[in-house]
This record gives sequence, structure tokens and C-alpha cells, in this order.
Amino acid sequence: MSEGDLSWPLRRAVGLHADSVAVVDQGRAVTYAELSERVTALGRGLDELSVEAGGRVGYLGVNSLAHLECWLGVPAAGRTLVDLNFRLTEAELAFIVDDCELEVLVVDSAGLEIGRSLRLACPTLRELVRDTSGACPADCVPYEQLVADRPGDSPPALNPADLAAISYTGGTTGKPKGVMLSHANLLANARHNLIATGHRPSDRWLHVCPMFHVAGTANVFACTWAGGRHVVLPRFDAHDVLRAIDREAITHTVLVPTMLAMLLEQLEAEPDRSLRSLRHIQYAASPISPELQRRVLERFDCEIVQFYGMTEAAPTVTCCTAEDHRRGFAQDPVRARRLRSIGAPVVGVEAEVRGPAGQAMPAGEVGEIWVRGPNVMLGYWKRPDATREAIVDGWYRSGDVAYADEDGYLYLVDRLKDMIITGGENVYSIEVESALAEHEAVREAAVFGVPDPRWGEAVHAVVMVNEDRAVTEGELIAHCRGRIGGYKVPRTIDLRTEPLPKSGAGKVLKSRLREPFWAAAAQKP
Amino acid sequence: MSEGDLSWPLRRAVGLHADSVAVVDQGRAVTYAELSERVTALGRGLDELSVEAGGRVGYLGVNSLAHLECWLGVPAAGRTLVDLNFRLTEAELAFIVDDCELEVLVVDSAGLEIGRSLRLACPTLRELVRDTSGACPADCVPYEQLVADRPGDSPPALNPADLAAISYTGGTTGKPKGVMLSHANLLANARHNLIATGHRPSDRWLHVCPMFHVAGTANVFACTWAGGRHVVLPRFDAHDVLRAIDREAITHTVLVPTMLAMLLEQLEAEPDRSLRSLRHIQYAASPISPELQRRVLERFDCEIVQFYGMTEAAPTVTCCTAEDHRRGFAQDPVRARRLRSIGAPVVGVEAEVRGPAGQAMPAGEVGEIWVRGPNVMLGYWKRPDATREAIVDGWYRSGDVAYADEDGYLYLVDRLKDMIITGGENVYSIEVESALAEHEAVREAAVFGVPDPRWGEAVHAVVMVNEDRAVTEGELIAHCRGRIGGYKVPRTIDLRTEPLPKSGAGKVLKSRLREPFWAAAAQKP
Repeated sequence: MSEGDLSWPLRRAVGLHADSVAVVDQGRAVTYAELSERVTALGRGLDELSVEAGGRVGYLGVNSLAHLECWLGVPAAGRTLVDLNFRLTEAELAFIVDDCELEVLVVDSAGLEIGRSLRLACPTLRELVRDTSGACPADCVPYEQLVADRPGDSPPALNPADLAAISYTGGTTGKPKGVMLSHANLLANARHNLIATGHRPSDRWLHVCPMFHVAGTANVFACTWAGGRHVVLPRFDAHDVLRAIDREAITHTVLVPTMLAMLLEQLEAEPDRSLRSLRHIQYAASPISPELQRRVLERFDCEIVQFYGMTEAAPTVTCCTAEDHRRGFAQDPVRARRLRSIGAPVVGVEAEVRGPAGQAMPAGEVGEIWVRGPNVMLGYWKRPDATREAIVDGWYRSGDVAYADEDGYLYLVDRLKDMIITGGENVYSIEVESALAEHEAVREAAVFGVPDPRWGEAVHAVVMVNEDRAVTEGELIAHCRGRIGGYKVPRTIDLRTEPLPKSGAGKVLKSRLREPFWAAAAQKP
Repeated sequence: MSEGDLSWPLRRAVGLHADSVAVVDQGRAVTYAELSERVTALGRGLDELSVEAGGRVGYLGVNSLAHLECWLGVPAAGRTLVDLNFRLTEAELAFIVDDCELEVLVVDSAGLEIGRSLRLACPTLRELVRDTSGACPADCVPYEQLVADRPGDSPPALNPADLAAISYTGGTTGKPKGVMLSHANLLANARHNLIATGHRPSDRWLHVCPMFHVAGTANVFACTWAGGRHVVLPRFDAHDVLRAIDREAITHTVLVPTMLAMLLEQLEAEPDRSLRSLRHIQYAASPISPELQRRVLERFDCEIVQFYGMTEAAPTVTCCTAEDHRRGFAQDPVRARRLRSIGAPVVGVEAEVRGPAGQAMPAGEVGEIWVRGPNVMLGYWKRPDATREAIVDGWYRSGDVAYADEDGYLYLVDRLKDMIITGGENVYSIEVESALAEHEAVREAAVFGVPDPRWGEAVHAVVMVNEDRAVTEGELIAHCRGRIGGYKVPRTIDLRTEPLPKSGAGKVLKSRLREPFWAAAAQKP
């Protein structure tokens, strides 16, 4: 009757594919037998570091073998993984470390200095682990020591409902919220992805989306369960991705639309790159433009699939399938229209369009997407009020506004949450507005997304400044840079001295400010 | 966080494929929209028949639209389906009806008379429903009336752990035991089958294995979830199966090896039958002979897959994949050997070979197969002792004896339970021995399986008779026929006057009796 826990995928893989290559990272290859030994040792290492059951262990860094091992090993050892977005500022990271009472943090070379600062600033954080196979500073535990074989206890018995990971997202209140994902949540999502995608032991998955995003880790467990091969790139670089596809005979990958656009650009510079091995490209995390979609379908001779989801759903909710994307759709108006959709709920997940009173909306009518399934989060860490607001009768209220067509395909039209998606990263306007408001020249600020050919949306601000204080756009941008993650900093700021337009209740009418930008974009061919 | 319940597959299908044909039964076709309406009405019909929440509703008959609707509708309406094996005798059925306190029984034309007898004999059984679109006798409720659209309450809220079905299997104690399967169990199995097989909306599944077996219903929920088409045949007839494949453009089916053998035979009589549409054949329920396997691979130009499981696991446990079955294996000794296996645990299910003390056995060493997963039954109905014996620390002890190779593939070598598998049906020896013992000429009886080219195994008995009573093999067979289902009745009986060989403890040494039959079979080329 056991639903299973996050130790299952690797246990199956090592049982059936012990000698197969499990992970390739920068030329280093480990088999499933080796991976399993390292992951078991990692659990014992956490015992030695005296991390209590359920205690929080963090990772701060780019994609790597160690990063992947933390996903496979930390929850399986009965601890909770907190995978940190390395694009956040130190202050933002410190908030998260304090909020979840992080005990141990694994850092890569870029994360070392910030890790040291966090250790000074945050009382619970007592140990830094340095992810390196080279020299390790004396104030850190070498990661390779942690995963070195040693005698020790068997891994603890796990409960599917146990907390496996806390994944922080920007918050509508301006502070990040920790999404609590259980073993059952992440395992259910792995099953849903396996059903929707059909992984096989011969698959070679390229992990290039950052693993601190659930979208980046979504296929880690699915691919492991099926016994496929993980190929890890530290970060997205179009040339490196093309080279990896070619050299490692990559069959599957997940990319955000911005990455797809860069890849197409790079392919013009490297037209002879072999993409022959590619069987399946997923795109996710932000809407795709029709033009980019058309070019992707033209250039890549493989299955193209869109996934839609969110951290709170671990993340997969809907899928626009390879069948939906198959070529020749332009001649079929229904199929052409469907490519504008986010697809239909995957097997295992329920999604409904509902009105403000929670009533199901008929086809064609706009409402909020509600989501239900074994993948839906336990709730927000230490935020019972936010949890009660988000989860109603077992349904998660996504805040995304959409309508369904007659065939149940969903079309996004807006976001209830005041959120911008830029290059696959979610930015909550209020965080940016708060940062701007800290500048003494700023009287009012409204932040929203404007169309951007490369990033989907770009962060834009309209600011009312004090007339007696001279400030430039550049100064305000510089002011934000130290306070919030770089991807949140406004690309452009309109300065004005007159007040922002407001509703009768005194709320800034952001829609009126935003409208001209999107109207202009809609007129483009 | 909801795991889901058995209303989910149909709800998804009607949401996405309302106008697609859902079921074809004897030339009648219903769409998913119609199927959903009928199934909803069925729930309201059970309300009208005053079946309490959790109350048991039975089906006795061959495969049909109504039979499939009972699977989709009875658990979704908060009741428990008891799907009865129509090959059992009236006495056996009466035991089951009493054991589970069946309230309502749906019968087809062949089941009507026995249904009436059961209603007389069993105090709880108060209502017969006649599965017919034609005239219905006055003492029965017409099934079509039950599924006619009517106003009524919404279906009840369901809990994944709720009992969905009781599936009776022969018992090691001589009496059938009710395997309790929850919504979560059957839904988990559907997910495992979807992962292992990869269903699509364009699939056309031929249901020809009897639906009262979990193997027969295994793909009902999976196919519905994916929005595929069900084609229902009342029973196996090789000619009808070939015609259905041809006419209905069947893509997928599940057969027991005996059926595959008959199909191959029939194909010699109908060599021009088109099998072009076939993409996938599963075989299950009993071991296949190497010779039959070779002929199947030769004759069918599609994926061939073996599933192994048992009712208690709802049922899928392991799978020998299409990849394992791909042609040209004869040149590869490892792959040729794997085709003798029952495959490896499917994604989502754990299976281990364990010794008598529950310890994991190393590769190559024989032990019992233990099974764990969200598909493992709740337990045996009203048999807490049997449940405690069968489920240990969340693992189900299958009673099947096997070893694993270095790659984790499992090879069956024996059955701990004294059970015969004949034509895909399980026969517990003790049931047959008890029936024989009721004859006054019988002093001792030992029943076991002997090799049979058509049925895999045939039921054989060795009987010590009283010297003062003359009895023939034919008389003993006739004696059994009224007492136990026809498939359980010995095909052959050796009569003798000397006692059966016994162990020091006085236990009949069945292995010594069985050995000569199997030694002879093993010597065949």
C-alpha cells in the first residue's frame, strides 16, 4: 500500500542498471552503482554532521553531479533539501536561510563567499560543504569527503507524506514563501512526467535549466526511475548546449522559451551541429511566442512538447503534447489554435477553470485555474494563512487566469498574482516596488512586465519622484541591484512627477499603465 | 494532495474526448459523453436501489458495455464492486455472495438462472439487475433503466483509501478469499500500466480476457484515463478476436498464453486476416512456453510485452518489455535468457526475492517474491489472520518462488502456494482435494498441475481409493463437476490402492508425485 518515497527511483535504477552510466558532468561519468554508493554515503555524511531528521540542508550553485546527488540523497536520508536560487541577493538568501532554519549549505565555487557571509549572518547555519573535487578551504567540509564510502546506519524509514524539499518562490506579500513538497508530491510528479513523456533506459536527458527550479529537477526523478542517463551542464550557454547534444547524443531536454530562442540563433552560427540524436524537447516555465514556436517546429526534427505548471504543483499540470505539435497544423484551424494553449491536464492531475465563488466555468469563459492531485504541495512553510488561502478543499488556486475550449484545452489570459515571467523566472512586482520605495527620491512605484523578444517579458517600472530630488533611471537601477536578484531589477524605468493613476479605492491602476505596451506588441505581425 | 479516486479517469476522458467513441460492444458504440452520463446515472440508480455507502454490488457475466460500466461506475458511486467468476459453481458463488454480503447482482443472460438461485439461497442478496437491452423478466430490474438519465444527487466524495472492489481468489485454506482493492490501489495500477505501456487517445484496446479477473480490467482504467477506445468481446473465440482486430482496427490487447496459442492456430485457417493495426500485445496470467513465445514473435509484427502480477497487487508487478522482446534476441544469450524471465519490476512497484527470514537474497539464489507499492491490496476481506500472514511490514508475500539475475530480472521457479495455473485461471489444489474427499470411495487425494501444451498446466489428481469400493476415473470427475468450477475439475485421475508417499511428518510428498510428469516435459526438444 506504500505510495513510495524518493529513494525508490534510484533503488530501481541500481537494481536494473547498475553498470549503466547514470550521470555525465563535465567529462566525469558515474554509473548507477557508483551513484547509489555516493548517495548512500551522503546520507551517512549528514548523520556525521548531526543533521537531525527533517533538518534542512541547502544547495547554492549551478547544476552539477553533486547538485543532482543532493536531490537524490538528501530527502532519501530523511532530511529536507532547500535548493537556493543563486540569482538572489545575499539579503534575499539570508531571509530564506533564516526562514527555514537551514543547518548545512553545500556551495559551489561561485557560492562560497556568499555562503560564508550567510554563515556569519544566520545563526542556524553552522556548516558549509564545498562542492569541489579540488582543494577545499579549511572552513568547509569537502563534498567528496561527504560522499566517500563509509560504514554507517541504513537510511531511515520514510513516510510518503514527509517533507522532502522546500522550494522558495517570490511571494505576493513581497517576501519569498517556502513551498513544502513531500516525497509523495515529487514522486507523483515523476509518475505524471513518465506517463506524459514515456522515459526509457536508453534516454539521455540534458539538464540545463537550473536545478533550483522544480522545472529543472522535474525530470531528475523520472529519468532516474526509468534508468536513463543524466547529462548535466552547469548553466545555459547556447554553444555548450549544442556541443553537448552532439557529443553526448542527447535524446531529451527541457528548455525555457528564452533558451530555445538563443539556441536557434546559435544554430545559425553553427549550422553543421548534429541534432540527430534529439527525440524530445520540452519547453516550459513561460509562454512562447507564436513566431518562436513556428521556428522551433521548423528547425528541430523531433517531438516538441509544452509543459505548464508551478512550484506548488511540483510542477506539472498540463501538457500540449507532441501530437498537438506535429507538423502540418497550420492547415487545421483547431490544431493551430491549440498551439496557443497550455494544453490539457496530464493524466494524474485535475485542473479546472473556476469563477470567483469556486464554481466551474463553462468552455470559453475566463476564470482562475484550480489544480488538484497527489502532486499538490503540502502548503507554505510556516505560513498557515497563505496555505489556507492557496489550498481550498484540496484544490490549489494557481492565480493564473485562463479559459478552456470545448475540448478541455486551457488558454492563459492573465495572472491574478501580480507577477512577471522573464526568461522563465517569476518576479513578483511587489518585491521590486518595495526595493524602489526604499530610495528617498521615490514617492510611488508601479512595476509590471512589458513584451520582450528575448525574455518573453521584461521588468518595467513607472516611478513618481519627489520634485525636489533629482534622480536618474540609472541611479534607481543601481539602487535596486544590491537589494534584489539581478533578474528582478527593472530593465527600464519611466520617471514622472505626476501621481500614478488610481482606482476609487486608491489602488494603482497598473492595467492602465501596462496596456499601451501590450497593445503595441499585439499590432506586430 | 489528493491521490485521486476511480472517478478521475472517466472525468478526464469526458473533459478532453467527449465526442470520441469510448466503447464498442457488439456493434453498439457509445461516446465518452454518453458513457459518462450512463455511469453517473448508474450511481443514482444504486441510490434508488438503496444500496448503502460501501455496499457490495456484483456482476456475473461475460464482458459487455454494462460490465465495463460497472467497473467505472460502482466504485465511483461509493459502492464496492464484486466481479464474480462465472466459471464457478453455484455453491462456490453462494459462498462468495454470503461472505461479502452482496446486495445487488447484475447478471447477463447466462447468469440469470444462477442469479435467481443465489437470490433464494443468500439472505443479503435482494435485487437482480438484468444486463439486457431487450425484454427483462419481471423479477429483475432492467439494466438500461438503471443507467437511464435522471435527476439525482451528485456522486459522493471519495477517499483514495476507500474500498473499491473485492476480487475473490481461490484460497490456500480451500475457501475463496476476497482481495480488498482500494481506489488508490486500482488507480496506482492504472498509472503503472500507463508508464509501462504508454497509452494514447488513438489506442483501441480489445478487452477479451474476462473482466472478472484483475488482469482483464487492468487496462480499463488506464485506457479510459488516456481517452482511448475500448472494444469489448463477450468471451474469447479465436475467430471473433481476429475479426475484431481486423474490423475495429485494434491496436492493443491483453491475452493469456493459451489464447495466443489458439489465435496462432486460427491464423492458419484465416491467413488473410489483417493484423496491420496491431501495435501492442500483452500476455499475462500464466507462464509462456519458449516454443509459443517464438511463434508469437514470428507471427505478430508488433510490440510483444509480458506482464506478471497477481490480484493482490491489482495486478501488475513486473514487465518483460517490448525492448526485451525485440527480434533478433536469439543471437544474444543474455537477451534470449531474459525472455525466460517474468521481467523486472515496473516503475512504481518494488519486488524483491527474499529468504524465509525475510532477508534479501543475492542474485541467482532462490527465494519468495515480496511486493511493495501503492497497488498492494488493503488486505483480505474479513480475514485479518490471512492478511497478517500475507502483508508483512507493508510488503505482500506473493508465495511465488523465483530468483533474480545480475540485472534484476526475475525468473519464476515454483509456487509456495499449492496452486495450478491452467489457461490463465488459478486453481488451488486444496479446493480440488476437498471436492474429491467428499466421495466415499476416496481415502486420500493429491492434486497438482501437469504440463499441457494448450492450457500451460492441466489439473491432475492421484487418488487412493478404498479397496472395497469400485469407482472409475469418470465417476470421480463427474462427482467433482457439480462441486467446483469446471476449470478446477481434474482432467485426469490416477487411481491406486496403496497410500500416497508421505514425509516423516505425515505430509503427502506431492513433489515426488509431480516430478515424473515435469521431467518428461523437460526432455522434450
